Amino acid sequence: RPVREVLFFPSRPCCIEALLAEAAEPGAPGRPCPCPLPSADTSLSRLVRRLLSARRSLDLCIFSFSCPQLARAVQLLHRRGVRVRLVTDAQYMGLHGSQIGRLRHAGIQVRHDQHSGYMHHKFAIVDQRMLITGSLNWTTQAIQSNRENVLIVEDATYVKPFLDEFERIWEEYNPSSYSFF
Amino acid sequence: RPVREVLFFPSRPCCIEALLAEAAEPGAPGRPCPCPLPSADTSLSRLVRRLLSARRSLDLCIFSFSCPQLARAVQLLHRRGVRVRLVTDAQYMGLHGSQIGRLRHAGIQVRHDQHSGYMHHKFAIVDQRMLITGSLNWTTQAIQSNRENVLIVEDATYVKPFLDEFERIWEEYNPSSYSFF
Repeated sequence: RPVREVLFFPSRPCCIEALLAEAAEPGAPGRPCPCPLPSADTSLSRLVRRLLSARRSLDLCIFSFSCPQLARAVQLLHRRGVRVRLVTDAQYMGLHGSQIGRLRHAGIQVRHDQHSGYMHHKFAIVDQRMLITGSLNWTTQAIQSNRENVLIVEDATYVKPFLDEFERIWEEYNPSSYSFF
Repeated sequence: RPVREVLFFPSRPCCIEALLAEAAEPGAPGRPCPCPLPSADTSLSRLVRRLLSARRSLDLCIFSFSCPQLARAVQLLHRRGVRVRLVTDAQYMGLHGSQIGRLRHAGIQVRHDQHSGYMHHKFAIVDQRMLITGSLNWTTQAIQSNRENVLIVEDATYVKPFLDEFERIWEEYNPSSYSFF
């Protein structure tokens, strides 16, 4: 049955170490995390679970990406062989706390705009099948403090246009077509 | 058949005078607008059409609202007897160009948060039936210059949680429960 889910934020703080450990090494005995946060079912943990369900590809268009937990989830998928492509905004990728440098360093392909307008999307497409989109930037401030929404959709009527939009942007932001004057 | 639509921005600039005139006085002979913009079918005109389809209610949660064209559409619905309720962000409602003062002046009920976190939603619910949500703030910059998305959904699986979220926020931001210390 196709996934149809809505997540609202702020999310209660929670520990996602068990989720990451299980995704890194399925079935391995979990080591208890020493942090004081509960491993609760929250909007954040649900979002992370959906991302970690990727088997083949993860296409990301994220305006502002500074949440270390989500960066770890993305890195883990990349290490597991999932094809990760990330589009972001040129002005926000350089801000303090941005995770873009870390993700590039890990070998993940990142492209960004060259415009004065913002690349303001905040969506992810898992395995070309599941769309995760809404108002939520991938920042700890947004997750813990803002009123935000995320829709999770497995209906091709919505997923297909986003796949096309991703490919359009990915090509448009190809560094080989940058202009420097 | 339920509406299922995706709009991407930036939108080509267009004139929405004909849409507003038709909504204000259905069937009246249209006066040609002297502006040089085309009355084209664009993401902006589609968004305006969906909003103007409201007959009974329009519930709005808009982080940043500075687009005069969208403000005119909302005002028109209010004048036509549609029950408009608007929730916005306390820090952004006072910025230069904000349309919130104008809408309040027109008699539209507005509520805002009292928090340091942002009320970052950007959604509208038409007649408790159609959800319009995405990354798009209602600003001219976002409409004309940013990469943005808007989903239009008539599926209760998505609409109902947003209706509940709206009512939660509307009550939480009731001025009678403000604290001043």
